[in-house]
Amino acid sequence: MKELKVFAPATVANLSCGFDVLGCCLDSVGDEMVVRKNDLNEIRITKVTGQELPMEADKNVAGVAVKALLKDLESDQGFDIEITKRIKPGSGIGSSAASSAGAVFAVNKLLGEPYSSNQLIPFAMQGELIASGNEHADNVAPALLGGFSLVRSYCPLEVLSLPVPSELRMVVLHPLIEIKTKDSRSIIKQNISLKSAINQWGNLGALISALYTDDYDLLGRSLEDEIVEPIRSILIPYFQELDELSVANGALGFGISGSGPSVYALCKGDENAEKVKQAIKKFYEKKGIDFDLHLSAINKQGVKIL
Amino acid sequence: MKELKVFAPATVANLSCGFDVLGCCLDSVGDEMVVRKNDLNEIRITKVTGQELPMEADKNVAGVAVKALLKDLESDQGFDIEITKRIKPGSGIGSSAASSAGAVFAVNKLLGEPYSSNQLIPFAMQGELIASGNEHADNVAPALLGGFSLVRSYCPLEVLSLPVPSELRMVVLHPLIEIKTKDSRSIIKQNISLKSAINQWGNLGALISALYTDDYDLLGRSLEDEIVEPIRSILIPYFQELDELSVANGALGFGISGSGPSVYALCKGDENAEKVKQAIKKFYEKKGIDFDLHLSAINKQGVKIL
Repeated sequence: MKELKVFAPATVANLSCGFDVLGCCLDSVGDEMVVRKNDLNEIRITKVTGQELPMEADKNVAGVAVKALLKDLESDQGFDIEITKRIKPGSGIGSSAASSAGAVFAVNKLLGEPYSSNQLIPFAMQGELIASGNEHADNVAPALLGGFSLVRSYCPLEVLSLPVPSELRMVVLHPLIEIKTKDSRSIIKQNISLKSAINQWGNLGALISALYTDDYDLLGRSLEDEIVEPIRSILIPYFQELDELSVANGALGFGISGSGPSVYALCKGDENAEKVKQAIKKFYEKKGIDFDLHLSAINKQGVKIL
Repeated sequence: MKELKVFAPATVANLSCGFDVLGCCLDSVGDEMVVRKNDLNEIRITKVTGQELPMEADKNVAGVAVKALLKDLESDQGFDIEITKRIKPGSGIGSSAASSAGAVFAVNKLLGEPYSSNQLIPFAMQGELIASGNEHADNVAPALLGGFSLVRSYCPLEVLSLPVPSELRMVVLHPLIEIKTKDSRSIIKQNISLKSAINQWGNLGALISALYTDDYDLLGRSLEDEIVEPIRSILIPYFQELDELSVANGALGFGISGSGPSVYALCKGDENAEKVKQAIKKFYEKKGIDFDLHLSAINKQGVKIL
């Protein structure tokens, strides 16, 4: 096999009480990438459509992630990478993670799968490092593994795959304003009250339990975040109104996707998700801010071969 | 039914990364209580053996918990309560919780079960309030429900019952020194770093996952606490040595039980638990501190009728 075309999915990280440790993978939003062996011992970004991205491999997250993999493997195989970007950079739904994950997934396949999906995570994290200044795993892990991923530990890295209740749907609103991950991180307080932290880990524990027991209502009650959301939500136009609107229309829960500005409403079933989506659409159309709006099932597979 | 004799179990709360939210119920350590209807419209503590406890109902945790139940029920039924105390107060394995839980369980039975076990938790918490100045649920909940209990939220109170991997065993060492819960709480820092909190909720999430998947090794790796244990362990003689000794002998994890001074080693299987118990015994016997040492399965039922 010389060439592979893959779907590189968008992801929702920092799922409310799961800040920095919990993310999930979307099914209907993502990039397309073509990765092809070359005979040049070189990693080249040969084509980017849909968005402006660095064409220099060392400045492009896909190039950086692939180079990390090849370095670990001590391989001098070259690759050409074409990216059809459908996830907007800075959207908060794992744009850089999709490119990093898609690239290392494809390269790994083309090399005969020397690594498991889980082993690809650290390479993809190198892409995240140049994108956001932070080597986080809660986007690249669900992009590679599918479903819900929990980062138990960063040092050593340990990521768990969690079960996915089958009726879960995500409605994701991306207000077309830009918030850089770096900026969004810098406003977070580095010290928090023990009381808030206890509430947060009580909720995260319950959320994990809800995933194992298909308890949608418990899932909804657990999607609380009193630590990061109150601060970051200030940067997102009409956050509070969107939250109330979504819940009033039956969403299980509502929160910030990644570092924003995208927000997500977690819903049970297509019908309810469609209702929440329409309510958000109607509300936001009046506000004079351009936006993208997605409805997606949870992608249990992660990166897919097309 | 006029009279009931119950086994009121000891519990291990603050299970490492589950500080303030996660506790579990022991099988072979606990008090015995006899609760009997009287015709006096009065709650009386009629007999206490094994320990010195207040005989005045308003100062005894069992009396306070029963009064809270009867007030909610608007009942003027009187009860006599006899307590054979085998759990030492101040031990850190839920002495007050056992009395509170055992008393409300028995009274509820004698009144024809107007409340579910879960509904009894707030009454038993009133007992905890006078015992420790803090209305915590992570001892009374597992005492009443059995197994592992997770407190998702205190306001409103929501407690989840979690599955119990069948081979889990607890070795509990109680060094016979007294640490008051109030004092042990006061040394905890009320502000913590976000980084530590993130590690803690990553571990708690993984611990919950491990309970659902019978993953003993993951359970062991998750039993970390970088927030409370480093501070509280200073009060416990030879904590670090006991931790290393337990893990070296095959324990899954080690930590402080409740607010101490008891410590627990979580083990897989009777054989390993016995090995860890003997190693701890041999070590502590040389140290000149009196101690109690327990080996127990996890009690899946909670308070039991004898």
